[in-house]
This record gives sequence, structure tokens and C-alpha cells, in this order.
Amino acid sequence: MTNKDARTPASTQNPTEMSEAGKSIGWHKAYVEGSRPGLRVPVRQVHLTNGQSVTLYDTSGPYTDPLVDTDVRRGLAPLRENWIVARGDTEEYAGRPVRPEDDGIKHTSPRGGLRNLDAVFPGRPRLPRRGREGKAVTQLAYARRGEITPEMEFVAIRENVSPEVVREEIAAGRAVLPANVNHPESEPMIIGKRFLVKVNANIGNSAVTSSIEEEVEKMTWATRWGADTVMDLSTGRNIHTTREWVLRNSPVPIGTVPLYQALEKVDGKAEELTWEIYKDTVIEQAEQGVDYMTVHAGVRLAYVPLTANRKTGIVSRGGSIMAAWCLAHHKESFLYEHFEELCEILAAYDVTYSLGDGLRPGSIADANDEAQFAELRTLGELNRIAKRHHVQTMIEGPGHVPMHKIKENIDLQQEICEEAPFYTLGPLTTDVAPAYDHITSGIGAAMIAWWGTAMLCYVTPKEHLGLPNRDDVKTGVITYKIAAHAADLAKGHPGAQEWDDALSDARFEFRWEDQFNLALDPDTAREFHDETLPAEPAKTAHFCSMCGPKFCSMKISQDIRREHGGSRAEIEEGMAQKSREFAAAGNRVYLPIAD
Amino acid sequence: MTNKDARTPASTQNPTEMSEAGKSIGWHKAYVEGSRPGLRVPVRQVHLTNGQSVTLYDTSGPYTDPLVDTDVRRGLAPLRENWIVARGDTEEYAGRPVRPEDDGIKHTSPRGGLRNLDAVFPGRPRLPRRGREGKAVTQLAYARRGEITPEMEFVAIRENVSPEVVREEIAAGRAVLPANVNHPESEPMIIGKRFLVKVNANIGNSAVTSSIEEEVEKMTWATRWGADTVMDLSTGRNIHTTREWVLRNSPVPIGTVPLYQALEKVDGKAEELTWEIYKDTVIEQAEQGVDYMTVHAGVRLAYVPLTANRKTGIVSRGGSIMAAWCLAHHKESFLYEHFEELCEILAAYDVTYSLGDGLRPGSIADANDEAQFAELRTLGELNRIAKRHHVQTMIEGPGHVPMHKIKENIDLQQEICEEAPFYTLGPLTTDVAPAYDHITSGIGAAMIAWWGTAMLCYVTPKEHLGLPNRDDVKTGVITYKIAAHAADLAKGHPGAQEWDDALSDARFEFRWEDQFNLALDPDTAREFHDETLPAEPAKTAHFCSMCGPKFCSMKISQDIRREHGGSRAEIEEGMAQKSREFAAAGNRVYLPIAD
Repeated sequence: MTNKDARTPASTQNPTEMSEAGKSIGWHKAYVEGSRPGLRVPVRQVHLTNGQSVTLYDTSGPYTDPLVDTDVRRGLAPLRENWIVARGDTEEYAGRPVRPEDDGIKHTSPRGGLRNLDAVFPGRPRLPRRGREGKAVTQLAYARRGEITPEMEFVAIRENVSPEVVREEIAAGRAVLPANVNHPESEPMIIGKRFLVKVNANIGNSAVTSSIEEEVEKMTWATRWGADTVMDLSTGRNIHTTREWVLRNSPVPIGTVPLYQALEKVDGKAEELTWEIYKDTVIEQAEQGVDYMTVHAGVRLAYVPLTANRKTGIVSRGGSIMAAWCLAHHKESFLYEHFEELCEILAAYDVTYSLGDGLRPGSIADANDEAQFAELRTLGELNRIAKRHHVQTMIEGPGHVPMHKIKENIDLQQEICEEAPFYTLGPLTTDVAPAYDHITSGIGAAMIAWWGTAMLCYVTPKEHLGLPNRDDVKTGVITYKIAAHAADLAKGHPGAQEWDDALSDARFEFRWEDQFNLALDPDTAREFHDETLPAEPAKTAHFCSMCGPKFCSMKISQDIRREHGGSRAEIEEGMAQKSREFAAAGNRVYLPIAD
Repeated sequence: MTNKDARTPASTQNPTEMSEAGKSIGWHKAYVEGSRPGLRVPVRQVHLTNGQSVTLYDTSGPYTDPLVDTDVRRGLAPLRENWIVARGDTEEYAGRPVRPEDDGIKHTSPRGGLRNLDAVFPGRPRLPRRGREGKAVTQLAYARRGEITPEMEFVAIRENVSPEVVREEIAAGRAVLPANVNHPESEPMIIGKRFLVKVNANIGNSAVTSSIEEEVEKMTWATRWGADTVMDLSTGRNIHTTREWVLRNSPVPIGTVPLYQALEKVDGKAEELTWEIYKDTVIEQAEQGVDYMTVHAGVRLAYVPLTANRKTGIVSRGGSIMAAWCLAHHKESFLYEHFEELCEILAAYDVTYSLGDGLRPGSIADANDEAQFAELRTLGELNRIAKRHHVQTMIEGPGHVPMHKIKENIDLQQEICEEAPFYTLGPLTTDVAPAYDHITSGIGAAMIAWWGTAMLCYVTPKEHLGLPNRDDVKTGVITYKIAAHAADLAKGHPGAQEWDDALSDARFEFRWEDQFNLALDPDTAREFHDETLPAEPAKTAHFCSMCGPKFCSMKISQDIRREHGGSRAEIEEGMAQKSREFAAAGNRVYLPIAD
């Protein structure tokens, strides 16, 4: 099974086929070379019919490179491996044996018994890796020491900024570069408010539905449309194996919520969770290569009563599991109590914290309440602890928030968490539109990203209703790429507007194929155009079906420009001439009205 | 053909069928009675499984009332006719004969020759009506005289405010109540920033595609999903007849751009347009009952050169037609020159001005430029003239605007146009997502409405690509209802949050049917839920397919509330008790970290 066959959207299939009559149009995968061999930053190069080209950020990984043979059974090439090994501060070790319960299998079965990572993913035998004793192996530690890693150089090229800017932002804790030493397949990317706004797509099976193959396919599909990271939120069977396959095939950082798997191991009984089971799960996932982990350590015992009079209580799965545990034992959260120890584990693999907002509001009524902000203050405290251990850290944010309460969220988060990257779910700006929550939340996402959120967690049309399928994943990603790019524009991110300008030029000049190829979703744009004007000549027609040829404003604008000279000066001179004739003829002009 | 059969979405079909086991759930059309017979304000009454009910604003007209037989050949009952006649300030008259060219037919044909309105719509013979000589018959004139008309009372009930507030806002020019005396079928509604944010849906055939039946169906379909007004932007054949059928069947105000039809009459040659042809077209449409008209009188000769160096020139059809005319003749716009005369015509029928922004930006690059704001200042001048003639007036706004430039638009418009209602198209916050411009624009729409825009013109997924079909119309309307409601919430509109609260209560209590029935789009919400959990018991299940039964945060929250007492005080007391035991046992709690 080659990934390319089944999963490539039409527009990216055989891009070389789009070269015709000696003119290369469409787009192809290209690379920008860095300062060392093997440091090649992928870009999407769009070739326009007017001979120009536009370079766009590309998250799709090797799958869109016709020169690379990909095979999900073998996984992607470990492009960062040499960089990691060359640093000499990590070591391979035997690792934790994989147990049946890691995959949710309780009793001895043909699949049961101890296994190692090779058995889970036979395609590429490997041992897990971790920092040597006494070595700080996180990008944060390197940045603080003034080192510019290959990963930092990679993202500097990708973001079109200097490597020093990347290093500074990471060192200051204002940006994270999630890059577990056990996920060498990932193409480095950065999350921080000085960089392009990023989008995360959630995938994951549940006890009710979905399979390993589907999840791997959702991951490649999501990155194809622009997902910068993917979270695997699986909760059903085969969690461990699904995650291994996703990681070995993922060109983007993978995030998880280890608590979900830990709960599976105690058969869903929150009160049976222990620090030991949780810690073991974190190590299990860190060895696999999970790049960032959501940890709900801010849900403290004392905050649970603050949610009692809420409209929708606790809506975060992780938050509610921890609240249930705290109440069942009448004890402080084991995540909060063992947070320093957890930092040491994450630091050994360079796993990035995503400090979860377990008490985020689940309805408009609950936005910005005491419970939410109490937890945020604790996240600020945990952020400082994590930094002390050189663990890269971002902070998760809501949720359901009406527009007028959004800014308070990002402002408070930035203040309390010392500008650590904010990573928000939407927020959803109203509760009344299930089946359209990609839109209710896309609105809030664009706004909060403009104001400083660094990464947006997508919401699909199935939010609140069911598990997203392939189409929902695409819709969610595209919606959030829109929100992210709208924010990049509003922030005045250097170069962001070039993309809009190129597309608008193509639109004004009726270069339909260029419009399609520059679109966030070329396939759907082309399909919609062809619905009413399917014939090939319509692709070069100087009108479209909205107005027909007689009414086309773009065409009239072009006629005006052509007939009256191209530039403003020329038009003004032509008009001035006519105006003199006009005045000489004594024609009355409508007199301005007195106030 | 009864409209109900073909066009009713599943959720509204035979709502009485949803009554079962003596318990009425689902929703039905209800009416709130006013102070006089026949003044009945429609509402959508949603009946919940917990015995409560929620009252929602309803734009769907008599089509959703099972007690009313509708027939598109007869048209809707003229509910405002008695009110209009009773005022005694209008008169019927012979009216302008309908000519073949009104329908785009040039030569004598079996359908050619003079006709009257009866021939165009045989279902309800009528004569056009206009204000008597010397009478000011607009809602603005009545409001200024201190009169509260039945129309004002109707919208006061609809908006849940006092009639005096409605009168004041109209008298001050801060709101309009579009209500042509020749469109007595319409249910009064109000557009102004103190009221609920409204949504307009555009329909209309073009020379390339579409038919009369389709347009009438699109209108009823759009209002079914929440469109507050509909603009008929037809440009092809049968413009006059299509508009007549749309008007006779429309429960919402209908807007047009008369310039489109005028241009058809001169075979698409802008330079052949004259004031006489335009004026005749305005009278033709006013007699039919058009409630508001977009007039691009702000596109002055001197502003055309300001667009020469733009990325996308002039993108408004009306704007480009007028620019072409001005340049072809090297004369000031005839709309600007004859604006006072136009005011007199509109005043006679109570047609509301929608002063068009012919120079709105069509790309991110062109936002907030000199051309756009020069025209806006002229619109401010024209607004004052219109008010002098007692013509209700709103102002149209952009277009393509990045987020950080949106607020300047509404602030300037409110200042320059003395708080006249702003009516904006989006704005689109990026150019790069053709096929998703309902979303790029929904983001901008929500923001600008929060800041004061009174009505939002929807954008469908087909924007820039083709004519919207039935699904596109629905998607556009729903997206814009989301933007409008998100803005109502952010503005703190009284009662707006009750809807969100009711839905969130249902969500927290796993009342799935109530969630569906309260949703903006019950059909799709139900369909999405059923995709993964189709069985009937899942409608009462205390979990859904996202997390499965073990992980449901809502369920855990409920368990917490149940086990530990319902209120915050009870939980705190329970916890305090445990806490005492806990402290007595000497358990260590994680110590707060010093800064």
C-alpha cells in the first residue's frame, strides 16, 4: 500500500501531469536547502500561468513528493535522527516492554503477552532514546545555552525569519518547538505568537467506532490540508498500536492526552487511577515519540466546587476525570502533586507540555468564570516549574466564549503565563449551532489568534455530535487554516499578504486556473466553478456564472483601465482633458448639499 | 402546488406528528397577539422534553403554519393592507404598463406587448399604490410625527422592546423598517443596531442559469432558515416576472439593485443608460413592492481614478457600471445628479434606500483605501438628503477587509452617516479561500456586527465561483445566523443568551432531542448524531460517540454533582468535612511554589 495512491487529493496527484505545452502550471513540492546536508525545508511552489510563482508553507510531508516512495508499513525516513545522534547527549536503552493492557487487551490472547516496539511496528526496528544522565536535551535548554539547533534553523527557513529570532523566542519561553527525540520523522515547526499561527487537528478512535488504518489515514489527510500538528485522542482498543503507526508515519508533531490511556488501563474507573499508572503511561508514550502531552495538572481539589453551579459543569474529559479522582479520594490531584517528577520525565525526551484547561467553559454561560481563571493561575505556576526543568510549555485555552469575553482570555493568559504560547480550542462564540461548530469556533479562533494565540485546535462539524470522518477532518482543517491566515494578515505577519495578493491578481485577470491552484482548497474551488460553467473555455473566460458576461464588474474595471490609460495619473490626465471640454460646454454639475 | 409539500425541511414537516404519548415535543409556529385584530407576531415555539419551552424569532412566514394553506400562484395574504389603507394617505392608481423589455424581451413575441400587473401574476389582481400628493407615507415620517404604526408595534413585539424604542430609533434614523406600501404581504421587521442583527440572503437568476421557480423556491428556502430580508439580484430574462412572483410570496422585505435591470434594458451597454430609463425602472419596481433598493449614487466621476492603482479595481457590479458610464460620458453620475428626484419617488412608496458601496474593496490589498472612504463621505451627504425627504436609509459596507481594519469601517460609517444602519457584505477576512468564503466572511461579519453593523449580507460557498444552489443558500444563511447571533450575544442583547442556555442545559442533561430541536439546523444536527449512533436508544443515552460511555465528561460532571450534593455550598460542605478528616490524617498536600 503506498500512501500516495489512496490518500492524495485530486489536485496533488501527479502534479507533473499539469505541465503541458512546455508551460509548467499547477504546483509542485520543492525544498529550500539549509546550511548542512539533509536540512531541506519543504515548500509548496505554485506556478502561475503568467510565469510567476508563489511559495507557500507546506505541512504535507513526503507524501506529496513524487520522488519519495512512502509506505505506511515502513514509516517515514527519520530525517532528524542524525541531528539528534550528533548532539551526543542522548542514549538508546531497552525501554519499557509493551503490555497487552497498553492496547486495552485485558486477558491472555493470541495478541497478548509482552512485546517490544518492533512487534508493534515491524517496519523499522528501533530502541527508544532518552537524555543521558545530567544532560538537558530540550530545545529550550539548547536555546538558553545560545545554541541554534538544526531544528531551529529548519523552522527559521520555514518561517522566513532569522535563526536567532527562533532561538530567542524559544529561550524566552514565548515559543515551543515540539520535537521528541523518539519522533525523528517529524519536520520541525514552531508555535509562538511571533510566527505563523498554527492549526492542530484531532484524530483518534473511541470505544464506539474507528480503526487503526482510519486514524493513520486521517493524520496524513489532515496534514495534506494544512494541519501543523495532530493530536491522537484515541480512547478505545489498540491505543498503543494506533499511536505507533501514526507516529512512524507523521511528518508533524503528535500530541496526546496520556490520561485517556491511563484511564483505559483501570477500566475507566477514575478513582482507581494512580500516579504510578499515569507515570508509566507517560513513559510508554514518550518512548514512542509523542511530541507534546496535554496534562490537566491545574485541576486542583479546591477548584472542583467552583464548577458546581455551572451550566455545563466540567466539559474537558481530562478535567472531569481528575475532578472525579480528587473528589473520590478527597485528595489533591496526583498530577499537581507529582508535577516536578513529571517534568523530569518530559525533559528526558524533550516532550513539550500542553498544560490542559480542564475547567474550560463548555457553554456561553460559563465563560470566564471563577473556576476557569483559578485554574489558569495554577497553570501559570506550573509553567514556571516546567521552565525550571527546561521543559517546553504551552498553555491550553477555551472553549465556549462569547466574542466580547475573548480578549480577556488571551490577555490574562499572556500575563499569568509569562507569554507562553496559548493553544486554544476555538473558542466557540455561541452554543446554538451544533453541526456548524467549525464555524461558531472559527470566528472565535480568528479573533483570539489575531490577539496572540499561537496555535488553534480545530473543531469539526461533528463537534458535540459524533466522531469526524474524512470530510469533517478536511472541513475542520480548512476552516482553521482560514482563521489562522486571517490572523496572520491582521497581525501583519511579513509575507502573509503575498498569498492574498497573488490570488486577487489572478482573480482580477481572470486566470481561473491560477485562482484554483492558489486556493486553500483547489479541488473544491474548481468543482464549484465547473458546476455552472463546466466547459474548458470557461477556465479562460473573462466572466463567470454569477453575473454573466454583460455585468462582470472585473471586466468593466479592466475595460476602464484599458480605455483610459493604466495608471491613476494617466486616467486623471485623460479625465482632466475631458473635464476641461466638459466645463467649457457649460454643463451643470450637481451642487453639494449644505448641511 | 402547495409550497409546504416541496419546500419544508424535514424538521418542520407536520410538527404535530411529533406529539406522542401526550407529550408535545419538537416545535410549532405560534403567534403573539398585539393590540389590534390581525396584529399577530409569528414565533417559533420549541417544546422541550422537560416541559419547558423556548420562544425563538421566526422569519419563515406562513409556510411553516400548518393551519395556513399557501399556494405560490395565489401569493401570501396581504396582512398589512388594512393598516396601509386605514392610514388614508395612499391611493391606488393605474400604474406603469408592463413592457416586454421589463422581462428582457426585445421583439414582439407571443409574450410581448403591454401587460399589466395582473397578467404577470394572475393570482391576485391589484393596482399599485403610492402616497397621495403632499403626504409623507414613510415609517420615518410617521415616527418623526410621534406615531406608532402597527408595523412598529409588530416589530416591538418581535424584538421584545417597547414600541416607543422602535419609534425613537426610526425617527433618529438609527433604524429602518423596510415596508413598501405595495408589499403588504411582508411581516414587519427592523434593521438597527439596538435590535437583533439581521441577515440578508441574495437570490437571482443570471443570463447564464436559473429560473423563476428556482428563485421563488430559494426565497422561501432562505427565509425558512432565517433570512430576514432577501435581495433579488436577477440579471437575465424574466426579471420583472420573477420579481413579481418573489414579492407576492415573500414574508420578508425584498431588496433589489434597479441598475441591473436598467442595464438589461439597454442591452448591457453602460454608456447607453439614462436617468429616464433608470427612473422608469425604479418606478416599475416600486409599484411591484420592492422594499429597499441599492443605489450606487456615491460613485462620483472624481472617484473613479482613485481605483486605477487598485489590486482588483471596482468589484461592485453597480459601482463598475456607474464608473463606466461616468467615464464614457465624462460627466458626473446621473444617480448623484438626480438624487433629490429619486428621493421623491422612493418616499411615495416608502422604499428604503440602501446606499451602495460601489467602490468597496474586492481584495485585502484594497481595504480602507482612498476610493472607499471618499465614497463613504458622499454616502454621508446623500444620507442627509434622503432623511430630508423622509426616506428611510441604510448604508452598505464592504467587502474584503482584514480583521485589523474592520473596526475603522464601522466607526467611520457611524460617524459620517449619523448612525444610519450599516449593512455589510461580510467582510471577507482573507482572499485565499474560494469555496469557503461563507467562512472567511462569517468571521468578519460576526466582528463588525458586534461593533454595530445592523444587517449582514450573506456570502455563500459559491462566492467568486458560481451561482448558489439550494444547499449553498442554506449554508450561507446558517453561517450568517451564527455570525448575527454571536454578535447579539457579544452586544448583550436582552434575551439573546436564553437560547444558548436552553441548548447547553439540554446538552448537559443529555436531552438529545431538545438539542436537535433548539439547534439552528435541527436536521443536520440530528443527521450527524445518527451517523455514528443511529439507534433510537442513543437519543436518550448519557454519552455520545466522541468519547463513548466511559469517558463522557458531562456524565462525570453529573456524577460529581449527584454524589456530592447539587449546589456549590453542598459540595463545599461535603468537601470541608472530608478535608477535616484529610488534615487530621496528616496527608501532605503539594506545597505552593515560590516565585
